[in-house]
Formats: sequence, C-alpha cells, structure tokens
Amino acid sequence: MKDNALKVLIIGGVATGPKTAARLRRLDSHAEITIIERGDILSYAGCGMPFYIEGVVEDYDSLLKTATGAVRDAAYFEKMKGVKVMDNTEAVRINRERKTVTVRDVRGGEPKDLPYDKLVLATGASPFVPKMEGVELEGVHRLYNPHDAKAIKEAVDAGAEKVAVVGGGLIGLETCGAFVERGCIVTVLEMMPNLVPALLDIEMALYLENYLRERGIDIVTGSLVSRILDDGSGKVAGVETADGRRVDADMVIVAIGVRPKTELAVEAGLEIGPTRAIAVNEHMQTSDPDIYAGGDCVECIHLVSGGKVYAPMGSTANKHGRIIANNIAGMGDTFPGVTATAVFKILSYNCGCTGLTEKMAKELGYDVVTSLCPKRDISHYIPRARFFLVKLVAERGTGRLLGCQVVGEGDGVKRVDVAATVLKFGGTVKDLADLDLAYAPAYSTAIDGIADAANVVRNKMDDLAHGVNPVELKRMLDEGDDFVFVDCRGRPAYEAGTISTDCTVNVPLAELKSRYGELPRDKEIVFFCNTSITAYNAERVMRGMDFTNVKFVEGSIKGWPYPFELKKR
Amino acid sequence: MKDNALKVLIIGGVATGPKTAARLRRLDSHAEITIIERGDILSYAGCGMPFYIEGVVEDYDSLLKTATGAVRDAAYFEKMKGVKVMDNTEAVRINRERKTVTVRDVRGGEPKDLPYDKLVLATGASPFVPKMEGVELEGVHRLYNPHDAKAIKEAVDAGAEKVAVVGGGLIGLETCGAFVERGCIVTVLEMMPNLVPALLDIEMALYLENYLRERGIDIVTGSLVSRILDDGSGKVAGVETADGRRVDADMVIVAIGVRPKTELAVEAGLEIGPTRAIAVNEHMQTSDPDIYAGGDCVECIHLVSGGKVYAPMGSTANKHGRIIANNIAGMGDTFPGVTATAVFKILSYNCGCTGLTEKMAKELGYDVVTSLCPKRDISHYIPRARFFLVKLVAERGTGRLLGCQVVGEGDGVKRVDVAATVLKFGGTVKDLADLDLAYAPAYSTAIDGIADAANVVRNKMDDLAHGVNPVELKRMLDEGDDFVFVDCRGRPAYEAGTISTDCTVNVPLAELKSRYGELPRDKEIVFFCNTSITAYNAERVMRGMDFTNVKFVEGSIKGWPYPFELKKR
Repeated sequence: MKDNALKVLIIGGVATGPKTAARLRRLDSHAEITIIERGDILSYAGCGMPFYIEGVVEDYDSLLKTATGAVRDAAYFEKMKGVKVMDNTEAVRINRERKTVTVRDVRGGEPKDLPYDKLVLATGASPFVPKMEGVELEGVHRLYNPHDAKAIKEAVDAGAEKVAVVGGGLIGLETCGAFVERGCIVTVLEMMPNLVPALLDIEMALYLENYLRERGIDIVTGSLVSRILDDGSGKVAGVETADGRRVDADMVIVAIGVRPKTELAVEAGLEIGPTRAIAVNEHMQTSDPDIYAGGDCVECIHLVSGGKVYAPMGSTANKHGRIIANNIAGMGDTFPGVTATAVFKILSYNCGCTGLTEKMAKELGYDVVTSLCPKRDISHYIPRARFFLVKLVAERGTGRLLGCQVVGEGDGVKRVDVAATVLKFGGTVKDLADLDLAYAPAYSTAIDGIADAANVVRNKMDDLAHGVNPVELKRMLDEGDDFVFVDCRGRPAYEAGTISTDCTVNVPLAELKSRYGELPRDKEIVFFCNTSITAYNAERVMRGMDFTNVKFVEGSIKGWPYPFELKKR
Repeated sequence: MKDNALKVLIIGGVATGPKTAARLRRLDSHAEITIIERGDILSYAGCGMPFYIEGVVEDYDSLLKTATGAVRDAAYFEKMKGVKVMDNTEAVRINRERKTVTVRDVRGGEPKDLPYDKLVLATGASPFVPKMEGVELEGVHRLYNPHDAKAIKEAVDAGAEKVAVVGGGLIGLETCGAFVERGCIVTVLEMMPNLVPALLDIEMALYLENYLRERGIDIVTGSLVSRILDDGSGKVAGVETADGRRVDADMVIVAIGVRPKTELAVEAGLEIGPTRAIAVNEHMQTSDPDIYAGGDCVECIHLVSGGKVYAPMGSTANKHGRIIANNIAGMGDTFPGVTATAVFKILSYNCGCTGLTEKMAKELGYDVVTSLCPKRDISHYIPRARFFLVKLVAERGTGRLLGCQVVGEGDGVKRVDVAATVLKFGGTVKDLADLDLAYAPAYSTAIDGIADAANVVRNKMDDLAHGVNPVELKRMLDEGDDFVFVDCRGRPAYEAGTISTDCTVNVPLAELKSRYGELPRDKEIVFFCNTSITAYNAERVMRGMDFTNVKFVEGSIKGWPYPFELKKR
C-alpha cells in the first residue's frame, strides 16, 4: 500500500457496498478499501429467494455465487477485487470528528476503531416486524436473507401445508406464488383495501386478485392481522385479524415491508430525509461530505413528482455503488433519481408499475387522464399471444406521462421499461405513441399495446373518447343507476354469454347505424365489448348521431376486474 | 350522406389505408371514405407469413382476420367502419387539377373517374425482383402477399426439400428459419459481405451467422446470384452465383428487398425524395397539400441523423394512418420520424437494431465509441437465463446514443425498445445507464444488460477501458501480429479449453497482482475471459501497475463471432 492511499470504509456487504468497492478498485488501484459486514454472507441474490423456495432455483448456493460459480465470500473479494472484507463484524458507531468507525466482531472480542478518509453507508433495510403477539412462535418467518429462505424451504419440504402470508406487497406476493407452486394452501392478508397498494391502483389490483383467487389463493384485504395464534406448544396455529377473522396456518410469513437501517446515521447526526431514509445529494453524499450513502438505506428523488421517495431496489443499489465510487475517485458523477419502477412475477402473471399511480398522482394534486386497455403482447395469430392489462396515467392538458401499470399473463413488463424511459425524459403520451418500438409478430402487435393505450389517453383529452372506469361501473350497476348498458359485440358473442349483470341491450356495432333509434337520448348510454375498441367505435358512431351522453367501459370484458361469469342467455 | 361531406379517396388497402379510413370515420361521421385496393385481400398480416409457412400459424385465414375472427373484406369495412372498399380495383391515374382519380376494375370494364377532396396514397411497396435469367421458372417465389405464402407452404407440404433463399435481409432470414423448422435444407445467398447489412454491423452479423450454420443453414455472403437454373422442364434446379458457385434447389425464394410503389405519385408530378420514396412533410402531406401519403411508399425523417430514410414497417404504416386521418379531420397532428427500428426472430435467435449501426454512423461522419457485450437476459440463477449480444454505438464526447443492435437467444428485443425510446429523446449513454428499468430476477439482471453496455461505452470514453473488437482481433491473430494474448480466467476454465488460437498465456485475474512481472511492458497485452468483465478488471489491474498498452477483447468468448472450438489443452 502506498502511504497516501485513500482509506475507504464501506459498511454493508450486499449490493451497494460490494459494487462501490469493485468499481472503486478499478478506478484507484491503491486505495485501501474495506467492507464491514455484520452477517456472514456477502452480495447475495436476495431477490432470488422466492425462486429458491419455489424450487426454480434448485441450489441454495447459487444465490450466493457469481454467474461463473464463485462464492462471493471474503476470500473472493480479496483475491478478485483486492478488497478487504470484515464479515461477522458490526459497525457500532461513527466518530465523525476523528473519522473512525468503531467495529466489533459479532462473535466476541473487543471493539476497535478503523480510520477512514471516505465512509460509505450501505446498511440496507430490514424487514418491518410489528410488535404483535405471537411473532416469536415457531413457524413464523420473515424473508430477509438466504438463511430465512432456507428455513422456509425446509419447512415446506417437511410438510408445511397451510401458509398465511401477512402483507400483500411485492415480496409477500412473490412468496405466495412460490407456495402455490409447492402445493400449499395460501392465504394472503393485506391491511390496505387492495393488494400491492404502492404499485397498483384499485382496478389493477382487483384484476390481479381475480386471477390469484382463480389460482386458489385466499385473499383478505382491508384487514389488519392483530395476532399470531399459538397451537399450545409454542408453534404457530394461524393468524387472527382485528375484525375477528381467523386463518389457520402451520406457517406464517411476515412480509409487511422494509425500513431503511439508519441507526448509525442517526446517531452520527447525519440528516434523515422526509421518508425516514438517509438524505443524500445528487453525488450520493450525506450531510457530511466525507460520508456517502446508497442503496436501501437512502431516499431518492422521484423523477416524476420531483419529491423524495423511498424506493429500495437492487438495481438502484447497484447504480448508487457505481456513482459513489466515481465520486470518491473524483469523477464527479451524479444520480438523477428514480421513477420508482417495480415489477414482480406471481404464477403466470407479470405485474409492475413505474411512475405514479392515479391515486398517488391525485394526492400530489395532478389533474390526470388515464387509460385502461387489455392488449395482446404479440400478434393475435401467433398462438402464444397473451393479454396484459395496461393502465396509463397522464397529466391533463400537457399530456405528460405520469405513470404506467401492467398486470396480466402477457408480457407487460417490457412496456414498463418503455414507460420508465419516457418518464425519465419527461415525455408525453404523444411521444409514447410516436415511438419507433420494435415490431415483428413474435414480439408485439403492429401498434404496440402501450402506444395504443397512449392514444386512448389522447382520445380522451381530445374529447373523442369518454370512458367509464370499471370500478365506477360496478358501483353504477350495484346501486342501480339509471343508464343503458349496451353490449355492442356481434350477436353470436352476445348469445354465447355476456357480462353477468343486467345488461339490457345487445346492439352490434354493425347494426348501430340502423338501430340507434332504439337507444334513448335522455339517458347515459354505456357500451362495452371484448377489449373496448368496438365500444369506443360505437361511442363515435353515436356521437356522430349527436348523442351526447355516451361512454364506453374501459377494459370491457377482457379488463373486467371483478369475479364474473359470462352469463348464458 | 350530407351534401358537404368530405370526399376522401384512399389508394391502398393493407395498413395505412385501412388505418386512415377507420380513424377518419371516428373523427368525421359524414365523410365519404373510399378505399381503392388493387388486390382482393385487405389489411392482411404480411409480417405473419413466415409463421404460416413454418406452421406456427396453422390457419391461412387467420392472416386475414381480426383478432375476433372477422375477415377484413369489403363487407367488413362497410359494416363495421362505414368505409366503402373497391377491391380488385386499380388506380390508374391521379388528375390533380380536376381532383379525381381514374380507376379500373382489374377484372375488366371501363375506367372511371372518382372525385376527391383529399387523397391518400397508401400504395405500399413491392418486392424487388431483378431481371435475371430464370426468375420466371416454376418453383421461384417471392414472399409479398398471402397468396405467395400459400404457394410456398404448399410447395413445402408437397415435398420441396432444398431451398435457396436469395437475399439475406430480414424477410429472407425469417423465411429461412421457417424452412429449417419444416425440415428443409436451406442455403441463403447475400450479395453483401454479411447478412442483414442494413441492421447489423459485421461482428453482430457474424455472430448470427455462426449460430445459423450450427442450425444447418448454408450461408453464402459476398456473392451475387447471377441466374436461376432450369432443370430442363421449366422448373427450378438451383441458382448460380457470379463467381461460379452452384447451389442446387427445388425451390428459390427471391427476397432481395422492397421498393416503394411511386408510379402514380411520379406520374402526378408529386415530389419524390432522395430515397426514391414519396416525400412528405411532418403532416404526411405530399407536395400537393390535398394529397397525403404514408406507409411503405413514403420516406421518413431519421430521428438520429436528421436525414431521410426509407424504412418500411407495419408499425410505422399504422402511425401514419392515424396522423393522416387527424390532419384530414383538421386536428393538425405531426409525425416526428423513426429511429429505423427493425427486429426479427430466426429459430431461437432474437435480432434487431434501432438507430444507426457503427458503419452507418461513420459514413455519416460521426466520431463513435461502441461497446459489445454478451449479457444474460435475466438473473443467472434462473435456469432459463440466456445470453444476448448487445452492441451500442454512441457519439464520442457527448455520449449521445446513436444506435443499438442485439443478436442472441436471450431477450434482446426488449432492450431495443428501451434504446429506441432513448434515441427518440436524444439521450446519452449516461441517461441509458441511469434508467430505472424494471428489475426482478425473472425479467432482468440487477444491472440490466443494456445499462451495463452503456457503462462500457462510458468507461471507454473516460479512458478507463480499451477494447479490441473481435474482427480486429481475428485480423491480429490471422496476420500474426506481435502481441501477448492472455486468458485471465481461472486455471480450471483455461485447462478445460480456451479459445482456439495461439493463446500463449493463462494468468488468472486472482494471480495477476503477483504475476504481472511475467508480462512484457513493451508489447500490447490483450486479455480475454468469458464475458469481458474479468478481462476489463485485468486491464485495470495492469494499468494500476503502470502498464500502458493493455486491452481486453470486447465480448470475449461468449461474444466471439467466428467459428471456434474451445481447444482442449
């Protein structure tokens, strides 16, 4: 080591920490780089844990290994990266004035102080486990690190059958899918009115719930789990909700969410942001310019709202690591922020969101226009074409895209990437519609589904299209509102079965020009069809006849987010 | 019809034409909209034809039908869209002064004049068939419309075994793949030095060729087909190239490319652009403001170069239709241009390009930096992870992204969409690296492959990484250049087999800090590994030791675009 070598301490060895170390080593061959990691596992694939429980990932070790099969332990970092790793070591205190960190071997021994020129906080997040009766019972798990995953898998292997998953967020749902694939009987309990409320608006979440119920998952929403039940022998017997519901279970997974680990930062007097995560500037510096922070312990700028957001994500953590290293090495890099993209796969469904949901956008004061479209992912004549439901949220007037959500068997996730890219540049729905997206029948439709959804938003802004959201329609039907509900598909489709409501009329689009006189001018008329396209055409025909109170059901049958049977008539 | 109804004539009934008509009908319920179509099939799925030949699309009619199973014939347009279709009708002449089009039933009868207020040219393109001996022989096909597809499929069903495909472009290759799946013996002949020269730089095309040869396709590049051979009975016997090669075949597909159909426009004195397609302004108006044109008969602005490009694509044709209708209806829409995105699937490989290739960019005078990276499409521990090779082209200095190419079994096409979106906004490689792309193990890697490729470009611009393109390396090896070629993988990997060249040294990265003295300071040192990442790390270690002439092989083993066997040593 050179005498003037920069001393860099990194607290945390999972994502941001190792990335910072590896990048910095490439930029500075002399720096003394040390990672301090409390656990015994470094740089593990936390996001892969549900796949391990499911059995898709067969080998536990593969969650710990590089693509070439090397285990990322202390020896690996030393040999391959020239980075010193102190595992099983806890950082106890940051002494900013002396520029040292007090550390202690968790297996015992005296604390000691390590000096730093630059310190990196990559302390990550920890799963939130509420103080609740029964959380310490045998059979109650969290899913935080590979040790947890191993314990859960062993429990399933040993015959655990009934599983209650507390928390219907991303991690909870991914885990539910794994349990279903393993043959378990699964109940998921979510406190909020719908699943994944941080990512999906109500109609998107309901659409997902429909599918999950079909796949046998029992879903309990709007219900707080108040305690975990004891079978009398210290083992879990189930959960009980505040409204008195009891769900039997021989395994309970607590997946309520994660909280940034900020204790060290707080104690050191570093600024904590409005989201309760560590505040950093665009260089990823904390309020102490010699202390950087990144990954799951910091908040980011939300590129759409401009506000702060806590959006922990392995991809972001890696970006942070690179940018921190660049700044420590004097390259002056900046991190612009995130669009809060998050996706997950549950059973055959691909789900995700980027940007703001309609609910969030409205809470932030945006005047929004949305579209809700069931689209095929590839050309309809290719047998493996599947539907995905896409929802776009845009700002009225400017047409600026604010967010995109997808749910369905079709490949909506690649459209989320496109939307995330448009959001990054502040693009509009017209920009989205104009994109030269890759078209070949095996990859998309001639007009890509997301471009079509963008055009629906434009049609609504241009006062050409007037949609009824299915949630509003359900209310209208349930409350018996006085309107005319028209199935405008062809007669054979209608006669084979239509939506199980009091659908009063079938007027196929092809007959509308000659039969419009059957429809009243003094009532609201709502058309539906299979995917909304025909219904929108019907709206246009009627407005061409000077009908003024005409709408179509957004999503129609293919996007209907409630349990329904096509009624045989 | 109202007396003052706008008379809109549309010449061409495949993509732009029907789209214009359908959109215009929704905007103007009174306009008299007439589509004039020379053929008997409207709005067919031309891009689906290779899938029909292959048998993935079983039903011929499904290429002609909507997703709900309606055949898009004249009656369909009349009933569902309120659009009149004159099929089997040829537009003979445009009379601009009188604002009429002279049409004629191709089955006979007198020509007649149809008046228009607005005329739309959606005449499309026709396959270029060179004047060549033998093109009229039985067994010689083009692949232009579903009739051709049917004839080809019937020939394969009837036992055609040896197929020669003349033209190694997108359509030619898609068709090759279909023939291989049908069990045919396939030869593809391309005049240019590599396949799909309009979309892929040489190393990307060679990488694809490697795969296609493994799959049994015989590839003849840089060789002009001079004539098609007669078996003596008026049937095809094969093809012969200008350099005297003979390829036996009982079926020949001529897929040399398409040319815009501009005869009517030329005769009417409308402006033709530098690409020989019809020139239009951003409103899709020709040089006559009452005549619009769109789809495969027009040229577009290339959003990267700012110049004109002829890039016929079904997706663009549909966008044009919407914009033309909007303008006719007075909504004043504009089409910004394309990034010339094109993708195709051949057997298990997904290939495509958006923006400029390196070759094109250099021809246009750009000073470029590129990266070439073999990346996994999803997390490595998921068994279905596959590699794709991605090449990025960026402008030196600004870092502006200029283009992106992908080839491989992994899902590179969704990355093409992301690149196309970045190109649309004029974004840089830093923008690309900063994108908040969707990450979950089932969809991508924590750092998405395209973001990684963007970072490689940044590393090269920052003088951190120095790559050798594999084509240059091949030359160095073939010509016996004096350099040290180092395999820096671990010894077991090296001993199991390394690249089949005179690789002189194995110095694993882990040993480099202690063994660098074995390497000369006065020669160029080139490292390679499996995917380039270790080799790049090796370069950084060496430069940290003040070695100045050190490079790594871009793409390394996983991206090696030449036939090679891993040599057992």
